[in-house]
Amino acid sequence: MQTKIITLASDFGLKDPYVAEMKAVILSISPNVTLIDVTHEVNKFDIRMGAYVLASVVPYFPTGTIHVGVIDPGVGTSRRPLLIETSREFFVGPDNGLLILAAEKQNIKSIREITNPQFMLKEISSTFHGRDVFAPAAAYLAEGISPSEFGPEVIDAIRPEFAKAIKTKDMLIGEVLHIDDFGNIITNIEDHEITNLNSQGILKIELPNYKLKLRFCKAYADAAPQEPIALIGSHSYLEIAMNQSNAAKKYATRPGDKVRLLLT
Amino acid sequence: MQTKIITLASDFGLKDPYVAEMKAVILSISPNVTLIDVTHEVNKFDIRMGAYVLASVVPYFPTGTIHVGVIDPGVGTSRRPLLIETSREFFVGPDNGLLILAAEKQNIKSIREITNPQFMLKEISSTFHGRDVFAPAAAYLAEGISPSEFGPEVIDAIRPEFAKAIKTKDMLIGEVLHIDDFGNIITNIEDHEITNLNSQGILKIELPNYKLKLRFCKAYADAAPQEPIALIGSHSYLEIAMNQSNAAKKYATRPGDKVRLLLT
Amino acid sequence: MQTKIITLASDFGLKDPYVAEMKAVILSISPNVTLIDVTHEVNKFDIRMGAYVLASVVPYFPTGTIHVGVIDPGVGTSRRPLLIETSREFFVGPDNGLLILAAEKQNIKSIREITNPQFMLKEISSTFHGRDVFAPAAAYLAEGISPSEFGPEVIDAIRPEFAKAIKTKDMLIGEVLHIDDFGNIITNIEDHEITNLNSQGILKIELPNYKLKLRFCKAYADAAPQEPIALIGSHSYLEIAMNQSNAAKKYATRPGDKVRLLLT
Repeated sequence: MQTKIITLASDFGLKDPYVAEMKAVILSISPNVTLIDVTHEVNKFDIRMGAYVLASVVPYFPTGTIHVGVIDPGVGTSRRPLLIETSREFFVGPDNGLLILAAEKQNIKSIREITNPQFMLKEISSTFHGRDVFAPAAAYLAEGISPSEFGPEVIDAIRPEFAKAIKTKDMLIGEVLHIDDFGNIITNIEDHEITNLNSQGILKIELPNYKLKLRFCKAYADAAPQEPIALIGSHSYLEIAMNQSNAAKKYATRPGDKVRLLLT
Repeated sequence: MQTKIITLASDFGLKDPYVAEMKAVILSISPNVTLIDVTHEVNKFDIRMGAYVLASVVPYFPTGTIHVGVIDPGVGTSRRPLLIETSREFFVGPDNGLLILAAEKQNIKSIREITNPQFMLKEISSTFHGRDVFAPAAAYLAEGISPSEFGPEVIDAIRPEFAKAIKTKDMLIGEVLHIDDFGNIITNIEDHEITNLNSQGILKIELPNYKLKLRFCKAYADAAPQEPIALIGSHSYLEIAMNQSNAAKKYATRPGDKVRLLLT
Repeated sequence: MQTKIITLASDFGLKDPYVAEMKAVILSISPNVTLIDVTHEVNKFDIRMGAYVLASVVPYFPTGTIHVGVIDPGVGTSRRPLLIETSREFFVGPDNGLLILAAEKQNIKSIREITNPQFMLKEISSTFHGRDVFAPAAAYLAEGISPSEFGPEVIDAIRPEFAKAIKTKDMLIGEVLHIDDFGNIITNIEDHEITNLNSQGILKIELPNYKLKLRFCKAYADAAPQEPIALIGSHSYLEIAMNQSNAAKKYATRPGDKVRLLLT
């Protein structure tokens, strides 16, 4: 029989016992799952980054995978714990916009509030629902409990306000979605939006304090060392990169910064 | 059949091959175990932090789990390798106080020195008993070897000197047990010791260079952003926290710092 | 039945979705493999460090293990993707010298270029062959596909230029292979090359800006705290270490630095 996969994404870091406590709770309920860490180094409380990471990684997992996301600054307040079922997978996490971006890549079948105490730890802390609510919910899902057992459907789940790139007469105005660990500047401008490269294959891109003319390349190594370039990254977003160097540091760029791509 | 769980906690970091070498040795002996990292980012040589992390996480794992702890500044000297069996789980690691705090949460059935070379690697380095002694011991335990096969019982295992909070006429004097990755200041004052909150729910707490009056809250998000608060964390210890900010940096606090909770 | 082990080593860090995407691809093809992270914190683009880490860890894994290495500054260029089969294990990764050091510890049976698109993802990005080429190759290997199905043999795989220590009349001239997370300075001078310790067990070692006389010890803890010592580390290389302190910081030493061991 196929074992179920449960993935974990959080802003907990790897120093503390928190991630292992979630895994311990899961394995106590569902001993044969395969546990995969997506990342636990999302910037603290950064729901946007968590949403980006989940949306990037989720499509590569097999059908039936259960994804647990815990970037949860509102833990212990009235924010609701959610269980989302799509045509391909399940999501468990807080109702703060973290999960929707990834879930919407498929057809969403239902969004439920997790209310059934039968599928939580007996004692629920006010500070760690990752361990006390989300981990057990994922484990019981893996054991075959139907989503409808966890709680009632909700229709007003919170949606994040990540900007879509806006097209004007002469430019695309987007924003920086993520700075990866290589310092690549990943924007929310998608490959199909870039249609009018000029004849030299040069892109004019404006960051808050820089006006750049960048060669549009296929691979990082197509550039000379230290040369800034533009390219389409592995998730089909426009990136600004420097071959074997850190573009985000060079241009003092941060997530949320505006990015203007000139079309003329 | 239920697979056995072996957990690993160390101060090795994740950059070097050390953790993977331990896993390789374990899988070579016991191929079907489930390996769970507790953390490998315990501060170098910080037995107190390792002991706190293990004591926090161990109760959440299923019965029969084997916990390997390697914070081992005395490796290669006469310090003994230990195998501890409790009513619930097993511990393998150095005799330096790392394991006792977690083990004592259950009934300790036996503490043994690992002396039988049959359950070690053939060549034992002087610098890496995690790989050469502790990993194989854990793997052979998972394979069903009885603790009594590993070596003789010892009665003088080293106990750590972590202070218990002391109660005087007008205060509780405790200490900082751990600073977590969010900057939460976790003290050794337990929830049941806090009995006389004044009518406003304000705690008077003194850190080495700060006298604080903190609202006593249930959840991190009950506070305004940047407001310092006191609360009971997910392991029942008194914490000082700032909502979405780093309390330990704000108050320049470190593990071991004295914490005074005024009772009047 | 024995499950196959696939190990992953990269310079991706743990913050981004990249490592989890590789695992997702592998599990989609070969759901029952055991995935082990060697490290993902190799210094960016540092093929030497990656080669050292792989060569250190690989001998401890069971026969039949599949090792995936992705330190790949040339991704998307004409550098070839390789599959190496030795008498003991398999390697998958870029043709840039990363894998050879580890592979040569066994008999190399074949080195192949991975060219068969049947064993890649359908869409191949120019920036992430770890996910699109290497992960699927490893997964199909785990599923029992024969190496000969992946592509033709090559005879000119790139070999790294890591210096062997050179012996002159009065000294051994080596270099720093790796600085580990404890700050231990690991050289490429092997234990069997150190034959003429003087009667006091003192080694005279020259680093770029320091001339040291170091006691030759068996274990880190044989030294007084802060005392610099020389010892043979757990992979049989000469190390310079400081008990519970960081030798590399103290002596401002970096990988590649020359190390002179005086023989008289």
